[in-house]
Amino acid sequence: MNEIKVFSPASIANLSCGYDILGACLDGIGDEITVRKTKNKELKITKIFGQKLSKNIKKNVAGVSANAFLKDIKVDCGFEIEIKKGIKPGSGIGSSAASAAGSVFAINELIGKPLSNKDLIKYAAEGEKAACGSAISDNVAAVLLGGFTFVREKNDIIKLNSPIGLAFTILHPQIEVKTSDSRALIKKIVSLEMMVKQSANLGAFVSGLYTEDYELIGRSMKDLVIEPFRSILIPKFKQIKSASINTGAIGCGISGSGPSVFALSKGLTTAKNVENAMKKIYDNLDLDYDVHVSRVNDKGIKIIKTL
Amino acid sequence: MNEIKVFSPASIANLSCGYDILGACLDGIGDEITVRKTKNKELKITKIFGQKLSKNIKKNVAGVSANAFLKDIKVDCGFEIEIKKGIKPGSGIGSSAASAAGSVFAINELIGKPLSNKDLIKYAAEGEKAACGSAISDNVAAVLLGGFTFVREKNDIIKLNSPIGLAFTILHPQIEVKTSDSRALIKKIVSLEMMVKQSANLGAFVSGLYTEDYELIGRSMKDLVIEPFRSILIPKFKQIKSASINTGAIGCGISGSGPSVFALSKGLTTAKNVENAMKKIYDNLDLDYDVHVSRVNDKGIKIIKTL
Repeated sequence: MNEIKVFSPASIANLSCGYDILGACLDGIGDEITVRKTKNKELKITKIFGQKLSKNIKKNVAGVSANAFLKDIKVDCGFEIEIKKGIKPGSGIGSSAASAAGSVFAINELIGKPLSNKDLIKYAAEGEKAACGSAISDNVAAVLLGGFTFVREKNDIIKLNSPIGLAFTILHPQIEVKTSDSRALIKKIVSLEMMVKQSANLGAFVSGLYTEDYELIGRSMKDLVIEPFRSILIPKFKQIKSASINTGAIGCGISGSGPSVFALSKGLTTAKNVENAMKKIYDNLDLDYDVHVSRVNDKGIKIIKTL
Repeated sequence: MNEIKVFSPASIANLSCGYDILGACLDGIGDEITVRKTKNKELKITKIFGQKLSKNIKKNVAGVSANAFLKDIKVDCGFEIEIKKGIKPGSGIGSSAASAAGSVFAINELIGKPLSNKDLIKYAAEGEKAACGSAISDNVAAVLLGGFTFVREKNDIIKLNSPIGLAFTILHPQIEVKTSDSRALIKKIVSLEMMVKQSANLGAFVSGLYTEDYELIGRSMKDLVIEPFRSILIPKFKQIKSASINTGAIGCGISGSGPSVFALSKGLTTAKNVENAMKKIYDNLDLDYDVHVSRVNDKGIKIIKTL
């Protein structure tokens, strides 16, 4: 195999109750990353479509993660990376994670898959570090493992159970919120009482995924610690949330560091009704936005084509 | 049925990673509660064996919980309660919870079981309030439901999966630590970073119970927030913990608010080896202590005899 094209999906981090811990993988929206072997033992980003981003491998997340990976393995060739961005940077649905995971996944496949996808998470997280300042794994874990993922520690990632039929509606207001700015908004201390409540929701959410208790999943998707601060950056957040829940979503919150907002529903039909409810609110604003509906993608990143 | 005798087991709260949230039910150690119907429509505690405790139904936790229950249901008789304490108050293995849960469970059975055990938790928690100042449900939930329990909110309790073969070793140093004193020792604020780490352990522990991943359960039983403060009250805590882990326990921490220390092992044999390792350390101290070994009691509170 000399060339590979992969689809590296968007993802939702935090899921209200699991700040820096939970991730979920989306479908239908993502980056396409093409990597080909070169004789010249260099790593290069040759083309980027869809967004204006640096091709410098020390600045582009896909280059940073690939470089980190290549430092740890022996290869006798170089690699050329082409990136077709399907996710807008700063949207809060794992744009940097998709690119960072995509390049390492593609290279790993090209060289005969010496590592598992789980093992690649730490390299992809290095790409995240270049984007937001810390090597958080919540999005890249979701991309590489699919479904719902849980970061216990940086190098201790768990793939959770993914109940049948869950679907996300994602609203992306076209305002850019940098992860680093959004992180700066958060209070750095919490009361013990708040910690107990927030972590009780996280544990109950995990239990709900395993027992496929949709009601429990829904009532556990609460964010008492982060959302009150971050939501002020998102136009009409409260209205979107009420409308989503009233339309049948089991949960609604900020996707990653925002500004995207997600709603989780049992079934695509409800997720589409939620999409319409969100549109109704945003159509009255003088603001561009996208809305996507996506099943939970339990498989994660995938190969589109090999040559 | 006019009389019932029940076995109300000891329990372990917190389990290192779930302060005020997690509980586990023990076997072989607990209170025996006998309740009989009386014509006189009064609630009375007639006898208490094994410990010096108040028979005043407004002071004794079994009376307080029973009273709270009886306020909500219609009965045309009174009740006499006899308590044989098998658990020492202030030991940290749910002495008050066993008595508080025992009386309401027994009365509920005597009157034809109008409520489920889950519904009884809130009344038993009222007994806990009398003992420690707040209506925490972690111990009473474990007693009434058995196995491993999770308190999402006061009235939203989940019974988790209980993997086969887990066994506890419980060391009880004979020093009294009141729950209220032990709670006062804890810092009331935590850093966001600490919250993320602690709650990641809680969620991973829950996942480990469902997937029966003993290693994950073990490495998730960490307490970064409470243990550093509370452990100073417990003689030789660090040595006990190292010895338990070195002997094969997958986790070790403070039971509830202490002073009891628990170790969790895969299998009774290891739990007994841990018992010996604990004894070796405590035999060198001038301090009375008990050690118990107990499987996880997945059934919880049970009827011994009815008349």
